[in-house]
Amino acid sequence: MSMQHVLDYLKQNQARFLSELCEFLRFPSVSAQSQHKDDLRACADWLVQHCRSIGLKAEVCPTAGHPIVLAKTPHVAASRNGKHRPHYLVYGHYDVQPPEPLNLWKSPPFEARIEGRSLFARGSTDNKGQIFAHLKAAEAYLKTGTPLPCDLTFLIEGEEEVGGENLVEFLKTRRKELHCDAIVVSDTGMPDKKHPALTYGLRGIIAFEIILHGPSRDLHSGIFGGAIENPAIALSGMLAKMHDKNGKVAVPHFYDGVLPLSAYERKQFKRLPLPDSALQKLLGVKKLYGERGFTATEQRSARPTFEINGLTSGYQGEGSKTIVPAWARAKITCRLVPNQRPSHINKVVCDYIKKVCPPTVRLELEAGHGAEAYYVSPTGAHAQAALRALRGAFGREPVLLREGGSIPIVNEFKKVLGADTLLLGLGLPEDNAHSPNEKFDLDNFENGQRMSALLWQELNATS
Amino acid sequence: MSMQHVLDYLKQNQARFLSELCEFLRFPSVSAQSQHKDDLRACADWLVQHCRSIGLKAEVCPTAGHPIVLAKTPHVAASRNGKHRPHYLVYGHYDVQPPEPLNLWKSPPFEARIEGRSLFARGSTDNKGQIFAHLKAAEAYLKTGTPLPCDLTFLIEGEEEVGGENLVEFLKTRRKELHCDAIVVSDTGMPDKKHPALTYGLRGIIAFEIILHGPSRDLHSGIFGGAIENPAIALSGMLAKMHDKNGKVAVPHFYDGVLPLSAYERKQFKRLPLPDSALQKLLGVKKLYGERGFTATEQRSARPTFEINGLTSGYQGEGSKTIVPAWARAKITCRLVPNQRPSHINKVVCDYIKKVCPPTVRLELEAGHGAEAYYVSPTGAHAQAALRALRGAFGREPVLLREGGSIPIVNEFKKVLGADTLLLGLGLPEDNAHSPNEKFDLDNFENGQRMSALLWQELNATS
Repeated sequence: MSMQHVLDYLKQNQARFLSELCEFLRFPSVSAQSQHKDDLRACADWLVQHCRSIGLKAEVCPTAGHPIVLAKTPHVAASRNGKHRPHYLVYGHYDVQPPEPLNLWKSPPFEARIEGRSLFARGSTDNKGQIFAHLKAAEAYLKTGTPLPCDLTFLIEGEEEVGGENLVEFLKTRRKELHCDAIVVSDTGMPDKKHPALTYGLRGIIAFEIILHGPSRDLHSGIFGGAIENPAIALSGMLAKMHDKNGKVAVPHFYDGVLPLSAYERKQFKRLPLPDSALQKLLGVKKLYGERGFTATEQRSARPTFEINGLTSGYQGEGSKTIVPAWARAKITCRLVPNQRPSHINKVVCDYIKKVCPPTVRLELEAGHGAEAYYVSPTGAHAQAALRALRGAFGREPVLLREGGSIPIVNEFKKVLGADTLLLGLGLPEDNAHSPNEKFDLDNFENGQRMSALLWQELNATS
Repeated sequence: MSMQHVLDYLKQNQARFLSELCEFLRFPSVSAQSQHKDDLRACADWLVQHCRSIGLKAEVCPTAGHPIVLAKTPHVAASRNGKHRPHYLVYGHYDVQPPEPLNLWKSPPFEARIEGRSLFARGSTDNKGQIFAHLKAAEAYLKTGTPLPCDLTFLIEGEEEVGGENLVEFLKTRRKELHCDAIVVSDTGMPDKKHPALTYGLRGIIAFEIILHGPSRDLHSGIFGGAIENPAIALSGMLAKMHDKNGKVAVPHFYDGVLPLSAYERKQFKRLPLPDSALQKLLGVKKLYGERGFTATEQRSARPTFEINGLTSGYQGEGSKTIVPAWARAKITCRLVPNQRPSHINKVVCDYIKKVCPPTVRLELEAGHGAEAYYVSPTGAHAQAALRALRGAFGREPVLLREGGSIPIVNEFKKVLGADTLLLGLGLPEDNAHSPNEKFDLDNFENGQRMSALLWQELNATS
């Protein structure tokens, strides 16, 4: 059996693959919401059954949180000539972001809807659809009896959207078994359908939560207002000090060590097919805005940020309620770039928040552990193999990207398994990842399957 | 017959008055709950019968909502010398707040319970007990045959707790008949039993709602963060500009025309028995805070404010969600003081909000109609008469109060009837108005009757 059989098999089975993916998308596997615990377990069970049905050896691996699904191609002994048989790890996640606000969805988030070449559902692009493309490529090898030139292990976790620590524990415990030549992840994006992409850099992240406590209870704003600090006003005042007038983060030492963009990178970025005007239209903003001296592409991929993800204080309902709220909260995340250490950012941000907090309120401040940014040379052998697979699958010249999002686990792969990660994303900017009406492009689904099938050959040719 | 007969009559009939008040309190006249419609009607009927039994000419006046009780002293023709015979309106309400949560009541809310000098029941202090004190004073005049130096009209409504518009309609319809020299209301408070009080000022109010729209949907903060304005950050920046570092509202022209506190008022405020340390403890704040140059009492009663009542943006739930929110909202109310016109404040606040709004977001701004502040000169003839009545009834030197809240009907009295209102509250801070275990102090009940009886003489001496 040859590669052509694999590609033919993929071509012939698209309708079934789609219906299977819809089934996968039906599970409301929202890892952030504790009421969905059983849904995550059910989703993992379904996934294991599915992996077994396509010929993989699969198991549900319990963790302290949501379970991990592990699935392997049938073990092949070292090849005839005693040469090292490569082993690649394919990583993905079956958990999804919360679907809220529900009223903005045009169809229910967990009932997949097909419209043209788009598949709408929470998790369709992030990440169920993308990991499913890799599974279908493996299925094509296994069901056509075409020999894989390598061993594959699929590692599909349930805590990616909540940054769970359990996967790291799992990597450490199973370090030997998971030892591999490289990790392949499709959880990033491509700039448009005509530009398949290899992502060679990611931003890191660190989360903070500020709660300012004022009076011991919500107070009548008529009887008491004027003589006490309003925590929502105090919080606004603090948050207003987080950026300077050039759009730079105003926290002292925030930019310590930030890796500057090379002339080569800035040139590569200019090849990208998304002009500012198109980005502005895509996002529906009145005007683009960011750190002065950088293009929008640079701002959102290679520069650090300080973002408010949520604000809460006082009355949230209809009409008005005349209170001085007892507390005010901001949920914050900073995106980090290569050479920014999360522990350093944690310290300088917390120091600054404490410094700008007025003495009239009590500060409750929490910081997450954070994840470093990631950066790998795009000229290495693995990256070059990946670019060939992309070219072959999409029939187009791929671009090189740095992405603004974070995939913390990529750093752990490097640290624990000692291997680099190839980021071969199939998501599009208009896919609404983390937003209402998330979708996945069905051409990318199909090209992604082909890319995965070709990749194992190209990596083998390289090694 | 002389004033002494009136006072003796009051003294001799306390036991009966108390039992009548208990009967009045037995009606669950909860205006907010439609299942109590008949109870309100029954309460109004009882009240009319009671007014008639003490010698008043009384009627139930239907409205589009709950009825109004109108009761008048027998008409007296213009006095011998042809001098204008004064007419005063006594306003109160027979409707009460919902009693819920019922499990927190130590005895059933509609079965009055006496413990020491406290009478526990829903409506005891707010407002059945207070209006009943005025009725008993009138009874004492009528039953002892002591000539009243004025005509009195009792206007007792059934929709105060639901802010109904029907009373305003009623005032307009009966404008001529209700024309009066002043309105007397006992529905405010006194700082403690040792300090009877005349409230001579109330703050007004105006509400605003700001919504800043950024991207057309919540965006992935990794993929897009850095190249667009975060509406929550933009909002924080705007709200941070609403106060200066001295705690003053920074909106230009906000203080235009604000009536300054006189030396006399500031001296009066210093007599109030709530020191800053006690207020700080009562509210549970780390530190008091307000406009520099004013005491806490002044800040919360005689100075305008700009308060955030609610903040909402992005993710509100458990854990974190890495988004740039599509929008951010602030609910705002300003408390106004005498001579600040709501329409002017509306204009200057909206102008300023528009001015400080960055061009990167779309501003949605709504303003409520607002209510003016209220102020009656504490050195005027009516106020001085009221202070003499308080002094005589309580045997203590009364204090002068300005309250930070709003009582909208007082402005309507001024607008429709052209008369000022004397606010002579008999409630104590510990009376639990609107809360479980509402009570009324029986000494205040008795002193309130005497105050009412003396008031008509003192007002007459003045006019």
